[in-house]
Amino acid sequence: MSKFIPSINKLIDEFSKLPGIGKKSAQRLAFYVINMEQSDAYNFAESILEVKRKIKYCEKCFNITESELCDICSDQKRDHTVICVVESPRDLIAIENTKEFRGYYHVLHGAISPMDGIGPNEIKIRELILRLQEDDSNEIIIATNPTIEGEATAMYISKLLKGTDIKVTRLAHGIPVGGDLEYADEITLAKAIEGRRVL
Amino acid sequence: MSKFIPSINKLIDEFSKLPGIGKKSAQRLAFYVINMEQSDAYNFAESILEVKRKIKYCEKCFNITESELCDICSDQKRDHTVICVVESPRDLIAIENTKEFRGYYHVLHGAISPMDGIGPNEIKIRELILRLQEDDSNEIIIATNPTIEGEATAMYISKLLKGTDIKVTRLAHGIPVGGDLEYADEITLAKAIEGRRVL
Repeated sequence: MSKFIPSINKLIDEFSKLPGIGKKSAQRLAFYVINMEQSDAYNFAESILEVKRKIKYCEKCFNITESELCDICSDQKRDHTVICVVESPRDLIAIENTKEFRGYYHVLHGAISPMDGIGPNEIKIRELILRLQEDDSNEIIIATNPTIEGEATAMYISKLLKGTDIKVTRLAHGIPVGGDLEYADEITLAKAIEGRRVL
Repeated sequence: MSKFIPSINKLIDEFSKLPGIGKKSAQRLAFYVINMEQSDAYNFAESILEVKRKIKYCEKCFNITESELCDICSDQKRDHTVICVVESPRDLIAIENTKEFRGYYHVLHGAISPMDGIGPNEIKIRELILRLQEDDSNEIIIATNPTIEGEATAMYISKLLKGTDIKVTRLAHGIPVGGDLEYADEITLAKAIEGRRVL
């Protein structure tokens, strides 16, 4: 089809590059754009460019922000003694949404993964250590993902901080709330037993 | 989260407006854009604008095109005696992909739907009739969707052409190839029996 209409072909290609968008969906989206109001299409394109123009990383924690410091780092009323270390800004959002954590964050922008050529220097670990030397934090919660890479990163950071007076903690593993024991995988179940708590 | 970053909020909103993209997917896509190369994001935005700038409707059949006439209408080697009437350019593509049809098309850009305030004048029916008076076609195949609106549109057009020497045909209903009788709905099955053919 699109063999004969280059501009549509190109838009379908662009949509196909997005995560989770297959060829069929990309086609559907491109045809939706064709039928959009001129001003809506302009707003859509402009909002893509605006994000690229405005979004930068917080100078302190590397969260995304439109200013020098993100809104969390700018907030002086939070708990200065604890920093939660996450892999990505989306993980930060997930934790913020729990409203359970009132400290500050540090976004690593990835996890150590030798297979993908990502070593400690490719993510914001050095910046974390430097920051800990200047800050008055006495605990870091390592909230990297429970994957091989996330665990490796957690181990690496905790080794770096061994011997300092900073307490290093890790999120608890266990059965998800509302989950079903029967369907929990064995490792999660083992971790849940290991981490059992007195009622 | 995005309460504190207006530009991301806006991009998530824009993605949410696309068909089949929910709030979670929109968030995922927006964060993907943040991490895109500057030039890739620019290309993406530009391809949206380019489609809006370049795509227009063919003056003859109302298919999408970048020129006055679409590539099909420009092709003099096709069969001038038959026009296939479809609701949308995507339906046209679907039929083109079968490589079974060598005539021309007419894209209605919708179907009659009184519930949505779409009457015969809101779609390209008048243009079809005018075209038939000038062309040398002697058959139109009405390939509107097998929905209430598509059927109403087919009936309307066939009534308009009653008394002329133009043969009006409709796509056959029946069991989809590779389909399973057991799972076919009753109406389709009834139509398949009604339209049975001698072997």
